[in-house]
Amino acid sequence: IELRKDSAIKKLFEDVHYADIAEVLDEVDFDEAIYIIKLLDSEKTSEILTELDEDTRLRILDNLSAKEIAEEISEMDTDDAADIIGELSAERQRNVINALEDIEHAADIKELLSYKDNTAGALMAKELVKVYETWTVAGCLRRIRGQAKEVSRVHSIYVVDKKERLVGRLSLKDLIVAKNDQKIADIYISSVDAVNVNEDDEEVAKIMSKYDLEAIPVVDDNNVLLGRITIDDIVDVLKEEADRDYQLAAGLTQDVDSDDSILDLTKARLPWLILALFGGFISVSILGGFGDAMSKFPELFFFTPLIAAMAGNVGVQSSAIIVQGLANDSLRGSLFKRLLKETILSLFNGLILSVLLMSAGMLILGFNFNVGLTVAISLISVIILASLIGTFVPIILDKKNIDPALATGPFITTSNDILGILIYFLIAKLILGF
Amino acid sequence: IELRKDSAIKKLFEDVHYADIAEVLDEVDFDEAIYIIKLLDSEKTSEILTELDEDTRLRILDNLSAKEIAEEISEMDTDDAADIIGELSAERQRNVINALEDIEHAADIKELLSYKDNTAGALMAKELVKVYETWTVAGCLRRIRGQAKEVSRVHSIYVVDKKERLVGRLSLKDLIVAKNDQKIADIYISSVDAVNVNEDDEEVAKIMSKYDLEAIPVVDDNNVLLGRITIDDIVDVLKEEADRDYQLAAGLTQDVDSDDSILDLTKARLPWLILALFGGFISVSILGGFGDAMSKFPELFFFTPLIAAMAGNVGVQSSAIIVQGLANDSLRGSLFKRLLKETILSLFNGLILSVLLMSAGMLILGFNFNVGLTVAISLISVIILASLIGTFVPIILDKKNIDPALATGPFITTSNDILGILIYFLIAKLILGF
Repeated sequence: IELRKDSAIKKLFEDVHYADIAEVLDEVDFDEAIYIIKLLDSEKTSEILTELDEDTRLRILDNLSAKEIAEEISEMDTDDAADIIGELSAERQRNVINALEDIEHAADIKELLSYKDNTAGALMAKELVKVYETWTVAGCLRRIRGQAKEVSRVHSIYVVDKKERLVGRLSLKDLIVAKNDQKIADIYISSVDAVNVNEDDEEVAKIMSKYDLEAIPVVDDNNVLLGRITIDDIVDVLKEEADRDYQLAAGLTQDVDSDDSILDLTKARLPWLILALFGGFISVSILGGFGDAMSKFPELFFFTPLIAAMAGNVGVQSSAIIVQGLANDSLRGSLFKRLLKETILSLFNGLILSVLLMSAGMLILGFNFNVGLTVAISLISVIILASLIGTFVPIILDKKNIDPALATGPFITTSNDILGILIYFLIAKLILGF
Repeated sequence: IELRKDSAIKKLFEDVHYADIAEVLDEVDFDEAIYIIKLLDSEKTSEILTELDEDTRLRILDNLSAKEIAEEISEMDTDDAADIIGELSAERQRNVINALEDIEHAADIKELLSYKDNTAGALMAKELVKVYETWTVAGCLRRIRGQAKEVSRVHSIYVVDKKERLVGRLSLKDLIVAKNDQKIADIYISSVDAVNVNEDDEEVAKIMSKYDLEAIPVVDDNNVLLGRITIDDIVDVLKEEADRDYQLAAGLTQDVDSDDSILDLTKARLPWLILALFGGFISVSILGGFGDAMSKFPELFFFTPLIAAMAGNVGVQSSAIIVQGLANDSLRGSLFKRLLKETILSLFNGLILSVLLMSAGMLILGFNFNVGLTVAISLISVIILASLIGTFVPIILDKKNIDPALATGPFITTSNDILGILIYFLIAKLILGF
């Protein structure tokens, strides 16, 4: 690259897939990336841009004029175009859209930008193959040859009535198998799944994967066909959802990766740690409040980390099962039955663990029976309570439309720690009477 | 259902999507499910069977004869058929395959069963549309009309040479746009992504989502076309992968959902809890070892849960970032640089948290300066160490081909707890000199 052998570079990248070029550009120096982008033709660079990391892309776009960006955009499908323009400032958005030569394309992109984030509208593309029910197969094939050039992949052909309302679908296969003089109205399949433009994108993902759909049409409240969502967009939604759940569970407030700056990483990590520190303080105060017991039963204090850790682990297990159940829509039966089952389960697990604990504590570490009993009873109580909280909280969060995955994160672990320690010492006070 | 109005039930289910029927069957009584399955025709029930929960499906299949299962299987695509037969015992597998009337279908299923789990071979279907490069467009269209009836969705048409080796691909769209007398050899696209039959399925998912492919052909070592994988299979792989990571992080040893039996749930949960209990014992012993300090510095013991919790939280945060980086192939740069960055980051976070801790501890709780300093220095050290372990362990696990998501689970949290407490008391001993 340093020697600036333009033609050699051009040739080098000619046969390389755009996703691979994007990977290279994410890694090379920034100036080199700009240089390569300007060198390649816009058909290729537009595809590369959609594949780049958001950070790299934004920096590259900052170095291009509105007209240059518009050139790239004009090569993109409307959904990718809207995503990328959406990342720009409001003023640049206007400039880029005004610089677009194809007025229809610009209008489509503007429409897509108007839908709220995380809705079917924000996810869909305007490119689709649409036929009117009154057409014949032959006429249809002729028109499709025209429309299909704009659409990168033909999944389904959507059939609409005169008022542009979705009435059915056709596959290319059906069309090829049909006779030329048949009417579309006679051969289309009238059962067609569609989603409303305001539907949540995770809901769309659920519907598409439940019914194994490769594309789904998007309609407005009057059933007018507006666009379509393809399964590759859904793969991205599913990935983002899984990543977000995982991050919430791990105590990260925002999407970070390890190559982000220390400041960004701190922003994502520190808030949860401060929360945990605050929780830690509460447990320090609780322990301090029971400090008088220390002279009589020092062993009690040795077990606090164990009790706290068990409460945390059990709570996370219970929550994770519920969170996954909610994500897969597989939770059935009443909340009461579920809590009852969780109680029996944790009583059972708690008994086994307590027996292990008492035998080990008394035989190996040589604690007296009353202390052993106290720890054992506390352990069972704490396990039951933590599992009930772990079951209850994600269900409540979900009902309040908050992401239930929050319940597997540090917030619940910290609360369980505190509650576990409090219960432990209250039980100890009851049994040992200090 | 109780009145057994067969025709009414039949009619009721006629227009219902098979995925919805499967949901109903998962919920109703088992006898009713069997009854409904036997009532509906095999075209519909075969689709329902593929959508059922594994548990429900196995119980239903137990109640069907090998011949009845074979009837269902004969309506399925080879990949679904192989998945379902694979769940049966070896003897029943043979019986069902022998009962299949279509010998070719049976041979395809047998072939698919022979591939190892989690490989491209186990994921692929044998149904595909294949043309020879020597054919003409017209002949091709004729043949495709025949082949396509077997294939539920035509993604790509694969072009092979005389020796069945994959040489390129064609889309239905290309074929429709082409003239009838053109040769396939003149119009096919020779650049075609393919995966080896022994490739790991998560790798296939990465490739397909990186290159936005909707289907990918599967070849053997001689590039002979064996089958194809479609993106809906990949959606399942991605979901399973995300679920497994989440479960590992939450401390569940196997795929459970909340409707499983208490025994199954215990099997998934108890092993990790015993591990955590064992870890808890070690921390009890450590604390016991430093028990003499209790009379002089009782406050030290109040802080153990706080130190342990912070170690756990920081470790999980660091691991989660690395695990996601590994999953997205976005980790770049040397391990040393990464550890250095993590050290600076946690030093920075640790300092902020320690200042908060010291001021709160001394001002609000009124601890003396030396104890405050001890806790603060311990906190910084523990945060740095936990984040280094959190960064290091998943990278090492990944290099040893163990799922790095294990590192965000109870195993690491427990180790970090123990290490955190040990370091804390060692530093306390150094500073306070007990």
